[in-house]
Amino acid sequence: MKRNEFQLRVNFGDTDTAGIVYYPNYFKWFDIAGHQFFRSIGLPPLKLMKEQNIILPLLHADCTFERPLYYDDIITIKTVVEEIKQKTIKLRHEVFRGETRTGYGFEVRGWVKESEGRIFAVPIPDDVRELLEEEGMGECAQTNPWLHA
Amino acid sequence: MKRNEFQLRVNFGDTDTAGIVYYPNYFKWFDIAGHQFFRSIGLPPLKLMKEQNIILPLLHADCTFERPLYYDDIITIKTVVEEIKQKTIKLRHEVFRGETRTGYGFEVRGWVKESEGRIFAVPIPDDVRELLEEEGMGECAQTNPWLHA
Amino acid sequence: MKRNEFQLRVNFGDTDTAGIVYYPNYFKWFDIAGHQFFRSIGLPPLKLMKEQNIILPLLHADCTFERPLYYDDIITIKTVVEEIKQKTIKLRHEVFRGETRTGYGFEVRGWVKESEGRIFAVPIPDDVRELLEEEGMGECAQTNPWLHA
Amino acid sequence: MKRNEFQLRVNFGDTDTAGIVYYPNYFKWFDIAGHQFFRSIGLPPLKLMKEQNIILPLLHADCTFERPLYYDDIITIKTVVEEIKQKTIKLRHEVFRGETRTGYGFEVRGWVKESEGRIFAVPIPDDVRELLEEEGMGECAQTNPWLHA
Repeated sequence: MKRNEFQLRVNFGDTDTAGIVYYPNYFKWFDIAGHQFFRSIGLPPLKLMKEQNIILPLLHADCTFERPLYYDDIITIKTVVEEIKQKTIKLRHEVFRGETRTGYGFEVRGWVKESEGRIFAVPIPDDVRELLEEEGMGECAQTNPWLHA
Repeated sequence: MKRNEFQLRVNFGDTDTAGIVYYPNYFKWFDIAGHQFFRSIGLPPLKLMKEQNIILPLLHADCTFERPLYYDDIITIKTVVEEIKQKTIKLRHEVFRGETRTGYGFEVRGWVKESEGRIFAVPIPDDVRELLEEEGMGECAQTNPWLHA
Repeated sequence: MKRNEFQLRVNFGDTDTAGIVYYPNYFKWFDIAGHQFFRSIGLPPLKLMKEQNIILPLLHADCTFERPLYYDDIITIKTVVEEIKQKTIKLRHEVFRGETRTGYGFEVRGWVKESEGRIFAVPIPDDVRELLEEEGMGECAQTNPWLHA
Repeated sequence: MKRNEFQLRVNFGDTDTAGIVYYPNYFKWFDIAGHQFFRSIGLPPLKLMKEQNIILPLLHADCTFERPLYYDDIITIKTVVEEIKQKTIKLRHEVFRGETRTGYGFEVRGWVKESEGRIFAVPIPDDVRELLEEEGMGECAQTNPWLHA
C-alpha cells in the first residue's frame, strides 16, 4: 500500500498546562499528514474539491498515546493506507521522535461527492484505488513536505 | 457606544510551554467576543452573511499583554465600540480576571459585501450605525453568552 | 455511573475549508468536557495537580463523526463514565445539536502521579472510585459550566 | 539588523467559515517565526529557558491584514529585528504568497528572568544585542526551518 512521511517541529503553543503536547494536536497532525498523503500520490484535496466536487470527510479517528512529546521535539509522521473499502479509505499514522514511537492512530475518510448542496458517499474510482494500493512512497517522499506544490 | 461582556474559562490546552496563556488565544477570544457583540445587538454575523452577503473581515488587530493568565482562570471580556468610520468598525476588548485587567486590544473590521465571487467594502447602513452608537449593553448582556441565539 | 453535560457554541474559526467543523475540535471539546466532568464531581484537575501531584494524561481517544456541524450551532456534550479499571478511567462523550447526535467518542485517561520528575500510573483511590460509580449528574449539572468554580 | 525567513503551507483547518485564513493564525505564525528567528541566531528559546531561566513573553502584538489567504497557499514569513530597547525586542513579520504581501505585524517581547517563582524583565546582554544588530540572515536562512536543530 502507498505510504508517505514528513517531519515537523512541536511548537511553543502545542503543549498544555502539564508541559506535554496537548492531545488534540495529534489529530491536527493526522489531518495534515492525511492531506499531505493525498498530495503525494497526485490527488491534492484542493484539486479533488475544485475539479470533481470530491471531499474526504472524517468518519472515524482514533489515537493511542504512548510517550509524551515536548516543545521543540522534531517528529516524523509515517502514513500508510491501512484498508480500502468501497467508499472509504483508512489511513494509519505513526508519530516518531527519532526511533521512538510516541503515538499512532487511524483516520477513516469517506469518498464523498457534493452536488446541488447535498453530499453523499460514492464508490472510489478504480484508478484511485490502484494508486492507493501500489507499494512505495508517494512522489513527495521527502521529509519536508511543506513546499511541495 | 454599545458594549457587551461575557465570561469564559481558560482551558488546559490554552497555555504554552511556559505555563501561561499562549498569546494567539487572546485574538481567538477577541474574535469570539466580536461575534458575540454583533449577536448582542441583533446582528448575528451568520444572519448578515446569509441574508445580506455581508462579512466582517479583520483589517487590523492588536493586543497589549499586561498580566499572565493561567489554566482554570475565569475571565471576563468587555467589548465596546471604539470608533465607526464610513466602512469600518473598531472594537475595544479588555480581558479581566476578577478586578485585574490582564490585557486589552482592538479589532478593526470592514463592512464588506460579497457579490459574484468578489468582495468589496461598502458603507455601513445608517440603522446599523445608530445601533452601534447607542449607549448601553446589547440584549445578551448576561455574562454567559454561549446560549443566546 | 456519574455523568455531566454542558453546552457551547461552534465558533467562526472552528470550521474548515469545507465549511464544517474541523474534526480535531471534537477532541478539544472532549478534553474540555473531561476536565469539566472532574470539576463537577469535586475533583478539579488543577486541584489534583497542586495538592496530590495527580495528572490525568490521555492513553487513548477516538471519535465517530455522524453529522456535520456548522458555525453558530449550539451543541450539548454529554459525558458519562464508561469504565473504571485499576489505574484508568474511560469516559464516553456524545455531542448533540438539539436532539440529533452529531458524533461520539471515548477518552481513556490514566491516574498518574508525578514525583521527582518522573510519572507513573497509580491505583485510583477507593473514594474516587466511589464518586465515579455513583449514579446521577455531578454538582455542576447546569448546562452552562463555564463559571462553576 | 538580523533577519530570517521560512515557508509553510496553509492547512485545511486554518481557514474560517468565510473560507479564508482565520486571523488568529497570523499570530500563531508570528510566534513560530519569532521562535525560529531566535533559533537562527543561535539562541533557541528552549536553551534560554533551560540554561539561563530566560523567557521571551509577549508585551504587544499587532497585525495588519492586506489580502485573504486560502487553503493550500504556500506562504513565506520574513522576520527582521525592528528595534532593541534595554529590556525588549521588537520583531517585524511580513507574510507573502509569492510576491504579494498578505499581511504584516509586530511582536514586542520582553527579556525576562524567572527566579524563585517570580519573573522580572532584565537588561538584554551585550552579546545578544550584538547578535541582533548584525546585518544578514541567521544561520538557518533556508526557507525550510522545520528541521534545523
